[in-house]
Amino acid sequence: MHPCSLIPCSLINGVPGDLLAISDRGLQYGDGLFETIAVRHGVCEFWERHLQRLFEGCTRLRIPLPDSALLTTEAQRLTHAVERAVLKIIITRGSGGRGYRIPDSVQPTRILICTDEPDHPHGNAQTGVRVRICTHTLGNHPALAGLKHLNRLDQVLARMEWADPDIAEGLLQDQTGRVIEGTYTNIFIVQQGRLLTPALNACGVAGVMRAVVLELATAAGIDCTERAVSLEDLYSAEELFLTNSLIGIWPVRELNHWRGSRGPLTSSLQTALDHLRQPTSRDTHD
Amino acid sequence: MHPCSLIPCSLINGVPGDLLAISDRGLQYGDGLFETIAVRHGVCEFWERHLQRLFEGCTRLRIPLPDSALLTTEAQRLTHAVERAVLKIIITRGSGGRGYRIPDSVQPTRILICTDEPDHPHGNAQTGVRVRICTHTLGNHPALAGLKHLNRLDQVLARMEWADPDIAEGLLQDQTGRVIEGTYTNIFIVQQGRLLTPALNACGVAGVMRAVVLELATAAGIDCTERAVSLEDLYSAEELFLTNSLIGIWPVRELNHWRGSRGPLTSSLQTALDHLRQPTSRDTHD
Repeated sequence: MHPCSLIPCSLINGVPGDLLAISDRGLQYGDGLFETIAVRHGVCEFWERHLQRLFEGCTRLRIPLPDSALLTTEAQRLTHAVERAVLKIIITRGSGGRGYRIPDSVQPTRILICTDEPDHPHGNAQTGVRVRICTHTLGNHPALAGLKHLNRLDQVLARMEWADPDIAEGLLQDQTGRVIEGTYTNIFIVQQGRLLTPALNACGVAGVMRAVVLELATAAGIDCTERAVSLEDLYSAEELFLTNSLIGIWPVRELNHWRGSRGPLTSSLQTALDHLRQPTSRDTHD
Repeated sequence: MHPCSLIPCSLINGVPGDLLAISDRGLQYGDGLFETIAVRHGVCEFWERHLQRLFEGCTRLRIPLPDSALLTTEAQRLTHAVERAVLKIIITRGSGGRGYRIPDSVQPTRILICTDEPDHPHGNAQTGVRVRICTHTLGNHPALAGLKHLNRLDQVLARMEWADPDIAEGLLQDQTGRVIEGTYTNIFIVQQGRLLTPALNACGVAGVMRAVVLELATAAGIDCTERAVSLEDLYSAEELFLTNSLIGIWPVRELNHWRGSRGPLTSSLQTALDHLRQPTSRDTHD
């Protein structure tokens, strides 16, 4: 329960609770998807976009689509009275099936969890963060590329590589040395005033904030490219920044020997994002 | 509960039950490992080997090792009165941590589940099975190769490719066309009287039965090789067979245009395995 109310912290198929059947394929195989959503002033930011990505994931994994009205109602039930929080939605293929084979009749499991915001240093958006390159590499999975699925051992293993709390993120490459993403963020590169971000057709998570930033940049007349990105692209960048739904946009100030600060393009995109996130404009844009 | 007794069907950290906290990293990230063990006459077959692989997996994923005496006691509690069954053990990194970062103090979750044997046709071991080649491919994950971890969307997606109940298994290739394994079995090839099986240094699960078969073959003076395997290796095979802990050894009788039957080497390995599985010899060998 939220400390100050009777609002539950989590719902499983609409019922308050925090326990799941061990037969659920979400546990057995990681057979499901999730979304991590920023809650501000009782509103789930970019709600429609998160729903859309979740539904795309369900379609690609052939999990029956959850009812969007039901999800919206349940999300509001958990978050409507919350000032700032994180809403995590997990959709699994439910229980059943013989081994990996999916059951003839799938009854997905719908889990919504509302938790406190992570306590990232408040200055990260202004002063920027330190980032490292991970040794752990991502395998190519075209069938899973872009999806925010529950098979996240890559991220867990990569995150184990450092303990220094001053390092905010680690970047992952694929087996051929292409830079793909951070463990929990997408990466953007500014080169000659243009915006570049890794193509995610073989691996990686296509973040909702990544899509928002690409749209904001395009709307501002900034040239945007999604393509294979090398370490050299990073080290020759004028500006680097990270994105995700919770942090928004964080400039990178240090990546190995590369040094930078919040540059003009990063700054203008932060301003545009702040405007989009204002309660007054949110209803229109989301 | 087992229908005829007061023996529970599952234990979570030693307590009878079938519900897990939704905060468990096994669900959140697939952050864990599992074993699938054949139970016959109240005994968990190849128990020590399964424990050893589980412990190797825990070590590689940096999950604190479960207590082997405790696991043995709990396994016996579920299986001692069972004639034939399957024991599944799941070890997760438990709850906690901020995002992918592992908690400072990990309290693993220990899940044991005893279920009925899958109802495979009894004649498979004699007459052999039909097998197909999957379109879905495996990504390279050297850090995860060999492990029986909980990130199994590859297998779920591959298993979705066919519905024909007469097809018993689908074989998976990596991104470069190397044959790695079946969705729930390892594959062996007989070429000129020698035994060949895919090397699993970049992806795949190193099955307990695979290791048993390699040892039985070596003990019988059969030349065994683990190396990269191509489709051509399969199609030029004299014999093909599949292995896992539940099925033992199944000859392949059909793989696309390739046709075969239970050959002399497959047959002799089945006999050697049957001998090893006899209750009288099991205590010695396990």
